[in-house]
Amino acid sequence: MRTSKEYREKILSMRPNVYMNGKLVGRDHPDFEPGIRTLALTYDLVDDPEYADLLTATSHLSGEKINRFTHMHQSTDDLLKKQEMTRKLCLVCGRCIQRCMGIDAMNGLSLVTKDIDNAKGTNYHERFLKYLRFFQDNDLVGNAAQSDVKGDRNLRPHQQADPDLYLHIVERREDGIVVRGAKAHNSIAAYADELIVIPTRALTEEEGDWAVAFAIQADAPGIKLISLPHNHRKRKHLKAPIEDYGTMHALTVFDNVFVPWDRVFMNGETEFAGQLASQFATYHRHSYTGCKPALSDIFLGATALMAEYNGIGKASHVRDKLAELITVGELVYGAGIAASVKGFKSASGTFAPDVVFTNVGRYHAGTNIYHEFETLADIAGGLAATLPFEEDFYSPDTKDDLEKYIMRKSDVCAENQHRAYRLVENLIASSTGAATGISGIHGGGSPVMEKIAIMSKYDIQARKNVVKYLAGIKD
Amino acid sequence: MRTSKEYREKILSMRPNVYMNGKLVGRDHPDFEPGIRTLALTYDLVDDPEYADLLTATSHLSGEKINRFTHMHQSTDDLLKKQEMTRKLCLVCGRCIQRCMGIDAMNGLSLVTKDIDNAKGTNYHERFLKYLRFFQDNDLVGNAAQSDVKGDRNLRPHQQADPDLYLHIVERREDGIVVRGAKAHNSIAAYADELIVIPTRALTEEEGDWAVAFAIQADAPGIKLISLPHNHRKRKHLKAPIEDYGTMHALTVFDNVFVPWDRVFMNGETEFAGQLASQFATYHRHSYTGCKPALSDIFLGATALMAEYNGIGKASHVRDKLAELITVGELVYGAGIAASVKGFKSASGTFAPDVVFTNVGRYHAGTNIYHEFETLADIAGGLAATLPFEEDFYSPDTKDDLEKYIMRKSDVCAENQHRAYRLVENLIASSTGAATGISGIHGGGSPVMEKIAIMSKYDIQARKNVVKYLAGIKD
Amino acid sequence: MRTSKEYREKILSMRPNVYMNGKLVGRDHPDFEPGIRTLALTYDLVDDPEYADLLTATSHLSGEKINRFTHMHQSTDDLLKKQEMTRKLCLVCGRCIQRCMGIDAMNGLSLVTKDIDNAKGTNYHERFLKYLRFFQDNDLVGNAAQSDVKGDRNLRPHQQADPDLYLHIVERREDGIVVRGAKAHNSIAAYADELIVIPTRALTEEEGDWAVAFAIQADAPGIKLISLPHNHRKRKHLKAPIEDYGTMHALTVFDNVFVPWDRVFMNGETEFAGQLASQFATYHRHSYTGCKPALSDIFLGATALMAEYNGIGKASHVRDKLAELITVGELVYGAGIAASVKGFKSASGTFAPDVVFTNVGRYHAGTNIYHEFETLADIAGGLAATLPFEEDFYSPDTKDDLEKYIMRKSDVCAENQHRAYRLVENLIASSTGAATGISGIHGGGSPVMEKIAIMSKYDIQARKNVVKYLAGIKD
Amino acid sequence: MRTSKEYREKILSMRPNVYMNGKLVGRDHPDFEPGIRTLALTYDLVDDPEYADLLTATSHLSGEKINRFTHMHQSTDDLLKKQEMTRKLCLVCGRCIQRCMGIDAMNGLSLVTKDIDNAKGTNYHERFLKYLRFFQDNDLVGNAAQSDVKGDRNLRPHQQADPDLYLHIVERREDGIVVRGAKAHNSIAAYADELIVIPTRALTEEEGDWAVAFAIQADAPGIKLISLPHNHRKRKHLKAPIEDYGTMHALTVFDNVFVPWDRVFMNGETEFAGQLASQFATYHRHSYTGCKPALSDIFLGATALMAEYNGIGKASHVRDKLAELITVGELVYGAGIAASVKGFKSASGTFAPDVVFTNVGRYHAGTNIYHEFETLADIAGGLAATLPFEEDFYSPDTKDDLEKYIMRKSDVCAENQHRAYRLVENLIASSTGAATGISGIHGGGSPVMEKIAIMSKYDIQARKNVVKYLAGIKD
Repeated sequence: MRTSKEYREKILSMRPNVYMNGKLVGRDHPDFEPGIRTLALTYDLVDDPEYADLLTATSHLSGEKINRFTHMHQSTDDLLKKQEMTRKLCLVCGRCIQRCMGIDAMNGLSLVTKDIDNAKGTNYHERFLKYLRFFQDNDLVGNAAQSDVKGDRNLRPHQQADPDLYLHIVERREDGIVVRGAKAHNSIAAYADELIVIPTRALTEEEGDWAVAFAIQADAPGIKLISLPHNHRKRKHLKAPIEDYGTMHALTVFDNVFVPWDRVFMNGETEFAGQLASQFATYHRHSYTGCKPALSDIFLGATALMAEYNGIGKASHVRDKLAELITVGELVYGAGIAASVKGFKSASGTFAPDVVFTNVGRYHAGTNIYHEFETLADIAGGLAATLPFEEDFYSPDTKDDLEKYIMRKSDVCAENQHRAYRLVENLIASSTGAATGISGIHGGGSPVMEKIAIMSKYDIQARKNVVKYLAGIKD
Repeated sequence: MRTSKEYREKILSMRPNVYMNGKLVGRDHPDFEPGIRTLALTYDLVDDPEYADLLTATSHLSGEKINRFTHMHQSTDDLLKKQEMTRKLCLVCGRCIQRCMGIDAMNGLSLVTKDIDNAKGTNYHERFLKYLRFFQDNDLVGNAAQSDVKGDRNLRPHQQADPDLYLHIVERREDGIVVRGAKAHNSIAAYADELIVIPTRALTEEEGDWAVAFAIQADAPGIKLISLPHNHRKRKHLKAPIEDYGTMHALTVFDNVFVPWDRVFMNGETEFAGQLASQFATYHRHSYTGCKPALSDIFLGATALMAEYNGIGKASHVRDKLAELITVGELVYGAGIAASVKGFKSASGTFAPDVVFTNVGRYHAGTNIYHEFETLADIAGGLAATLPFEEDFYSPDTKDDLEKYIMRKSDVCAENQHRAYRLVENLIASSTGAATGISGIHGGGSPVMEKIAIMSKYDIQARKNVVKYLAGIKD
Repeated sequence: MRTSKEYREKILSMRPNVYMNGKLVGRDHPDFEPGIRTLALTYDLVDDPEYADLLTATSHLSGEKINRFTHMHQSTDDLLKKQEMTRKLCLVCGRCIQRCMGIDAMNGLSLVTKDIDNAKGTNYHERFLKYLRFFQDNDLVGNAAQSDVKGDRNLRPHQQADPDLYLHIVERREDGIVVRGAKAHNSIAAYADELIVIPTRALTEEEGDWAVAFAIQADAPGIKLISLPHNHRKRKHLKAPIEDYGTMHALTVFDNVFVPWDRVFMNGETEFAGQLASQFATYHRHSYTGCKPALSDIFLGATALMAEYNGIGKASHVRDKLAELITVGELVYGAGIAASVKGFKSASGTFAPDVVFTNVGRYHAGTNIYHEFETLADIAGGLAATLPFEEDFYSPDTKDDLEKYIMRKSDVCAENQHRAYRLVENLIASSTGAATGISGIHGGGSPVMEKIAIMSKYDIQARKNVVKYLAGIKD
Repeated sequence: MRTSKEYREKILSMRPNVYMNGKLVGRDHPDFEPGIRTLALTYDLVDDPEYADLLTATSHLSGEKINRFTHMHQSTDDLLKKQEMTRKLCLVCGRCIQRCMGIDAMNGLSLVTKDIDNAKGTNYHERFLKYLRFFQDNDLVGNAAQSDVKGDRNLRPHQQADPDLYLHIVERREDGIVVRGAKAHNSIAAYADELIVIPTRALTEEEGDWAVAFAIQADAPGIKLISLPHNHRKRKHLKAPIEDYGTMHALTVFDNVFVPWDRVFMNGETEFAGQLASQFATYHRHSYTGCKPALSDIFLGATALMAEYNGIGKASHVRDKLAELITVGELVYGAGIAASVKGFKSASGTFAPDVVFTNVGRYHAGTNIYHEFETLADIAGGLAATLPFEEDFYSPDTKDDLEKYIMRKSDVCAENQHRAYRLVENLIASSTGAATGISGIHGGGSPVMEKIAIMSKYDIQARKNVVKYLAGIKD
């Protein structure tokens, strides 16, 4: 398995193709560091006894010990471990661990390439397995590039004013394909090794050029990553893990990018585009049943800490709200467990979580995230929004005043009160915190997408039949 | 295993001690039939291939095949099967299957009697196992008598104006104990073989007389069952399963009732009263993660059927509401699965579900029940509340009018429209339906009780520590 | 003004055309009494100093003092008084005061007949005023017959398999029209003097026969009232006002009913059908901003009383819930006040409430009703659902037991505890209570109808323009 | 009346006592500009025909035309105009208009000083009127300094480890008083003329030193304003009103500040501290019934615009959500109207809004703000959180890509799509937007405070009595 040092060196060696704030920047730009440091955790902790069992697996290809973030799930137990690993790692960095997305896309490809082959006599799965072996052996970080920019939401891909509004094949050559388009909201693309590209939706027959899936190096010719960092404002005095980790999103532009055949996993099979899109979504939403409870843990801990520091830790209404926060996180986590237990082994041998439980879990997370913000804001009080600058706590003119007037419970020192409020500001009163709310709705698919997934799989007719039986209706 | 005929004959042979509407009635009173018929299902379906595997188990005592409703859970698998059995049986009778409560109390006793013995050198567990063997061999129906009437909620048991407001021991004799008090909300007590009596709450040292658990025949001397039936109004023409099944609650009065020692399972061990109360509650709430999803299934099916019959089955807002109903039921069911998976084997060998997952599941059910009523009422429309009497649909004066004006989608005949609305009236516009809403909140413990259970077990400090670490707070 | 005795005598003198439970019954059937008694309040209290100013008005036609339930609103003050009168009267009968519906329909007709005349040169308004004078002089009770049975909700009136599924004109004669069809959910029709019939929806050009409005005696030839009473179960011992009042709904069948021209107020003017439907709805929803707060008052009072009797009146979570109940009722009432203040004088001189405020008020009531049930059920506890029969409290066999075990706070006697729970049972655990929940959603138009009304009137474009200005978008 | 130029010159002439980001800064620091520009609107628009009638009033003292932001309300009409003025001005600056707080405090003082005088024979009201005349004649901007930093929330002011955690009198001199302490969350203090200081809570007898109210110049000796600006990131290319306006909060430190007697309005009258605190709160929450609907207007407009630009403006679920946003804003606004209509004239002649309606309105705003964020985030999609930097839209390297891939509906140009998303980012994905959510809960008092106010005024006993009457309970 790769070390974090090797991962970092590889990233730094890549061709500069990241644009930020109007400039082409190298991957050594300081805004990358929080993201790279987050990914590094997934390498560093493989030897930590607390995480080792969760963070490693045995490759079903090579029989070697591999990083779980490169593993194809083989069983319920693999899914349970992935879920638990995700929750625990998110608690180390205080946010999204990020590496799940690539492996969620890979699992989706594993399953669907086999189904395509079975249906059409193609050999995508073999290709995919070769690529997977390379991916595992090199312990790579993959980004999942799924969301097209989508243009007019009322129109299908082939109806858009500009065909590039959904990424598509513009040329099929002897040695591979050439694609054009853009993928949006690409977390970690700027510090990933590889981009795993898959369709964003079900397609119709005339949309063969849009039915495309492939893997590509993140710095391949023609790829531009227009990036936006989401890091907490650097602190000068009050260092803390919460500021160490961060993320970066990209709009990834594919400007006539060449992909060789051995990295192409779908090429026009429109009838499988929807399945691949939703199979990735299922895996990714299952990952959310691990990471969102971690976010709930953090909101719960922060709310409880604020209540304690304010001297109201035992107030009845506070305990009531803490209990509600717990129910949110654990219902989501429980749904993920149920999805693992009720999962199924696909034709490829890859194990997949149950669609309904996965989606009700992700749905519940997505429809409660703003309520979690509200609860923390409610208990923490207005100071989260009006906390003076860090510098004011260290300037001789204002230091004494601020240390005097930030005091609450007298046995918690001013610095800790400050630290606690600075963290809460980071969580709910910063642009990064605010973005977490939005990604809490949309990441992995918004609640409306989960409803669609649920409705597509749930046997409503069976429930109608129960009711007809109870009512004595025969027809 | 007993047959339903044997069960019924036994019940009919019991001493008349049921009072209803101002009279002492025999157990052959027609208001008993819907309840007895419900219980009979748990006997009749053991041979049905669809239910046999769920409804039977192998006794860990005798090695015999027994009814699962008399089984002590030995594993995750037992809990999963109990949960699934509960959901499926509730769909047959269209409501609570009722027999869970006794076996939930028995499982609680199994676990706690062992813990008492381990702590205090008593031999309750052995007694209990003997009683259990008798219970299994005779395939008995047990009622769980837990909720005391509780008097002034501000006062502890021993502080009440009348000590009997919590059931307690009034005499300890050589051959057993004598108890007095009353237990409320006792579903099925009037057609159960046995009452399993346990404390309702944690107790303090001075409350030794209230720390009592035992089993007693439901018609033992001194026991009065003041009963209230909850059945649907009998139909004359429009027969349907929904009216076949019902329930009956009792206020069970213990007027100096003698209990021999071999049926006494707690006698003054106040420090275990709370554990027993909450261990039963955990098992029973876990049963709710099976039965409440069944109720959600019925509300979902009824809502979908009403939408179809009204011609709006495909409307976007209808599908949205159906999806929300699904998430309620499946989050609860998923939490129950997670509770089974994350359960633990107790000192007694009996397997118990995880407390937090069980309680978040029950909590979610309890806080959503009225919203389920609201959704069905919303989609079904006002006719649920203004549907004329059944007789009017059969009287020559009004039959033609009603059959003409109840028509909606023209391919659904008037009788089926009528049947569907009659069922919805039963579900949400009848006293029985209304009571289901209330028991949806309070049965097995109201949401506030689940919050208390969650807060007593959840490691909030661990979450505070995560947040302190992220904030850089060391102390 | 009429006395309640005169009202009652008139009702009893009407032709028997009410069908109930398979039989033709006279209006002296005991199930009518609770409804008639409710209406009688609106006559009896005109002389009560507490109500006189609210319950009377000065006719703008005759200058005479009239019952406000026959008055055409002339000002903001009239609307405020109607709203307050409604709330106060509902607190006397503990439920819907019922007489609002007729006068809401009359106000709607007053306004729209004038607009039709202005647009088309007809003389409906003059006809209407003559009828109004008769209505006021005789102090009549009017039912509003609006909701057609509607058949397949996907089809328009003229597309239905049976054209009668929406009431329509089947013949236009020299002396009047003949109509056929049925109106559903007709509260008080069985003990009203008159039916005020108006369309239920907007109509298209080809639906001229459905664009019809008129007034007719409730016992006119061809009218059948198939009725369903919603009364509380009669008590034998524990008499209380809550059981004195009740309601009765009807499916009103018009089987070729003749209406003379002087009672016809719309005859084919399809372009005004929608306006009349929604103008009545606006007036009626404005009445809901008076009656629903009264229901909230009752739920609030019952919740507070239960909490007190249980000894938890000062618990923090109880006070929290009481405060939430208050916000529901007062937001609705406040919206009704705002609607009165921001109302407008129509061409007819009749004053109408603002559409948006009226509808947001009714919407808030409709979307909170089940939450009010939930709150009362939560605080009252399961006994609301398991309270033994009244008779059991009076039978020598069980009286002592029940009086002993119903005790809570020791300074509240058993009878009052019983009375309080019996009332709560009536409110939330009876078929009548359950029906109140459903009418809380649908009466006057369900929340989805209010949204439609709001969206049709609210100036969303103005808000978009604000945002475009703020964003610097010019187009 | 003052011009905005005069206001600005005055502010710039003040003694530098503002600290920001570790430095003492002048009021000409660029971070002040957005706040000053917001206040300037309240001067500039007095001559604008659209606002003149709302923005001016006639002084009841001088009979002169004055700015309404210096006016003592005399009637329902004054309150209605203040509410409407507030809503309209907030739509000009796209956020809080800020000047309300000072005049809300002044109205509170007007009312309470008279009540103190009446009770205790003091002459605060006369003092206050002199000060008011000065305030009106000079058309001043007042900040309301109410929230003490409060220390341990479990302890009363006089119990705190440091008595200064609540501002208090440290010396009473012949010519005035000397105060010490700090006031938190002081919006506009840094660019106000005057600070109006009042207590934050009810006080007990031993807390006479904390019962203090006064007015003071914002740059008086001993006052330090430690400030935090909340402005949107300056744009270089995409200028828009949304970025022109902003706010600045301060922790205002009073380090032995001298206040002459003619500016002291409470000096030890502990029994009136709670009344003054809550009377200001009532006025200020009434202002919220004007400003929060404006914020709802903006969220509504932005949601509708995003839906339109994405091509889903007519989707059923979008219209549903728009309707819900409308109900939030208009219920709040309606409650404010009702509070104005049901207000009362105090002993001082100053008119005050009804407490219950005011508080239910503010409560509804506070409990829905995060849901409004959620709705906009839901409809706008993830791009609000991942929108690249403004510069990237203007850099030659990335301009073409971004303009190509931001396209949605093809008839809306790329710049407008960009403008719309930049605005949404400002609203919900920036630190300033995030702070708006928090102040939406806490500004003017959080929902829990409104519940306390409601419970203190609402006649729950009257509702219990209604229920007792209905239940037949006499006692």
